[in-house]
Amino acid sequence: MAFTLSRRMQHIDSSGIRRVFDLAASLKNPINLSIGQPDYAMPEPIRLAIEKALRDGKTAYTPTQGILPLRERLSRKYATVNGFTAHPDDIVISSGIAALLELLFLVTIDPGDEVLLTDPAFLIYRSLLSFLGARVHTIAEDFALDDTLAFSGQNLKLIVFSTPSNPTGRILEEKQILALGSLADRTGALLVSDEIYELFDYEKKFQSPGALYPRTITLSGFSKTYSMTGLRLAAATGPREVMKAITTLQQYSIVCAPSAVQYGGIAALDLDMSSFVERYKENRNRLRECLDGLSYPSPDGAFYLFPRIGKNDLDFVERAIKEEELLLVPGNIFTDRTDSIRISYAVSTETLERGMAALKRLLS
Amino acid sequence: MAFTLSRRMQHIDSSGIRRVFDLAASLKNPINLSIGQPDYAMPEPIRLAIEKALRDGKTAYTPTQGILPLRERLSRKYATVNGFTAHPDDIVISSGIAALLELLFLVTIDPGDEVLLTDPAFLIYRSLLSFLGARVHTIAEDFALDDTLAFSGQNLKLIVFSTPSNPTGRILEEKQILALGSLADRTGALLVSDEIYELFDYEKKFQSPGALYPRTITLSGFSKTYSMTGLRLAAATGPREVMKAITTLQQYSIVCAPSAVQYGGIAALDLDMSSFVERYKENRNRLRECLDGLSYPSPDGAFYLFPRIGKNDLDFVERAIKEEELLLVPGNIFTDRTDSIRISYAVSTETLERGMAALKRLLS
Repeated sequence: MAFTLSRRMQHIDSSGIRRVFDLAASLKNPINLSIGQPDYAMPEPIRLAIEKALRDGKTAYTPTQGILPLRERLSRKYATVNGFTAHPDDIVISSGIAALLELLFLVTIDPGDEVLLTDPAFLIYRSLLSFLGARVHTIAEDFALDDTLAFSGQNLKLIVFSTPSNPTGRILEEKQILALGSLADRTGALLVSDEIYELFDYEKKFQSPGALYPRTITLSGFSKTYSMTGLRLAAATGPREVMKAITTLQQYSIVCAPSAVQYGGIAALDLDMSSFVERYKENRNRLRECLDGLSYPSPDGAFYLFPRIGKNDLDFVERAIKEEELLLVPGNIFTDRTDSIRISYAVSTETLERGMAALKRLLS
Repeated sequence: MAFTLSRRMQHIDSSGIRRVFDLAASLKNPINLSIGQPDYAMPEPIRLAIEKALRDGKTAYTPTQGILPLRERLSRKYATVNGFTAHPDDIVISSGIAALLELLFLVTIDPGDEVLLTDPAFLIYRSLLSFLGARVHTIAEDFALDDTLAFSGQNLKLIVFSTPSNPTGRILEEKQILALGSLADRTGALLVSDEIYELFDYEKKFQSPGALYPRTITLSGFSKTYSMTGLRLAAATGPREVMKAITTLQQYSIVCAPSAVQYGGIAALDLDMSSFVERYKENRNRLRECLDGLSYPSPDGAFYLFPRIGKNDLDFVERAIKEEELLLVPGNIFTDRTDSIRISYAVSTETLERGMAALKRLLS
């Protein structure tokens, strides 16, 4: 008898982006403006803390929820940096935000449940939600407050967004967060705020939705800020019932975030990363000059610009690879529209210069 | 409106074992024979390899499937140690076997699908399968060959077992593996062989099912052998279509196994662990003497004995905590029966001595 995969697999697809990756894999020394990770090294204090943990034999299972000193340190961060109260018992450490999203969606979403995403949205939200059979609605991330009324009659389970946004860099305004909170009240939904780019906040606009609306699940990552995308460390906090459910499922799947890396997380939260952030702000400003004349969402934070290029995104990205060995991400993986590209400026000055020169030629 | 968790959450429960954990948490210096991890330290060459990877800046995303040198090294291990061919392209590295099981079940199991487990079975198999709505059947792990005929009419999706087994230590015989393979052929199922204890094989009985039956998914862990349960590293190999599906879903969830730890995995596979295994064999033999008169499944490997104690398991475990500060695992979390306990002998000589003295008093 033939073996068949689960029906869920019909709803997950990575063929579009894979075509680009396959093309890019043939390049020896591409100009890479596609990447979602900083060009700087993970700071040494984090490495030393991980090495000390390894030497101290911290290689065994940690508590499912994560080590208490890291949860206590995060509790302090949420109070002092983010402006809301999160008890260490209500914080869960896991192996990256993607793992937390999978756990969260598995413990909250049944097939047919409805979810609202701001648009454009990080690829993984839609992929995982579709995989699990959710019905996904979208609202433009620059929505006017009245736009939320269209969803008041829905039975929304979650309202998911990233702020600062991947792929646009836009930071949600306070009045927008409050409008989403009001929509959550009306529909029974929880807010899910992915804040992995929170420190890349160039105009000091960022506000943690958890400080404005209580029924918020806050997702905090170490990957981007501290350049440790491969070490898989993130945290969630929010309503106790949901944190308990995530912990229960984590016990049977993720088990725990990498033990030694959790100690690195404590060291990370004491670091001052402002000089790194400042450099990316300069990168952003230079890239904006280069893209003069193109329109794009307000690039308040993260390290992406998402310009409309007046051409098909996939065609443009393929042309960029072939003509300029320049790697970009087609906008269509984040939105139904096909007229935008995502440009990452989390790169060295030299790479940015080369990339901007290539972009100028491609756009001329 | 009130928020509700997904219906799946009704099918996952950890209250039984949690009651034991809560009791145990009050103890200052328990005799711990409940633990599923070795008492020895992670070998230094693994630590040095991880530290070198960190110093070399290996903190960024790895390929979703895992770094090629580790997949190549595993391919060599499968050929030389396990006796079957696995191309590096058909090997997936992930964050532990539990994570691989979650990915595997999500990409293969729809609600209502049928799965066969050998009984007793590792807790996580049943928990995750029930969570995802599978219908779980069991067959005694010491089944006679004809016993498989009872399932020939079923539409089985997977046949899942661990060998050496957690919780019994029993190693499946060649003729049993062939019978399960034959059942897989008749029902359309794949075999899923969890081999995390493969090196703890005290009578040299272990055979990798992948060498006997081609439609086998082999799960290989680093956690137990190399005492790195908290660092989250494991591998899967098997039919290409399933490995591709696991990789696709991993891209949206686990993302990659911890980058620096993957380099540690390469170093691990070159180590000779026989002296550690020999010590646990001695532990096993002494524990068998202590349990003289009790019956238990053939303790061929792993580091557990699973004796029938002629008393209710949970009552006995609670009594052991209260009277002797001795931690054991109630057998009922692995099987419907309530007459057995799991004793781990992955402990120091001193702990084993204290534990055996306590057991003698409890059983007298």
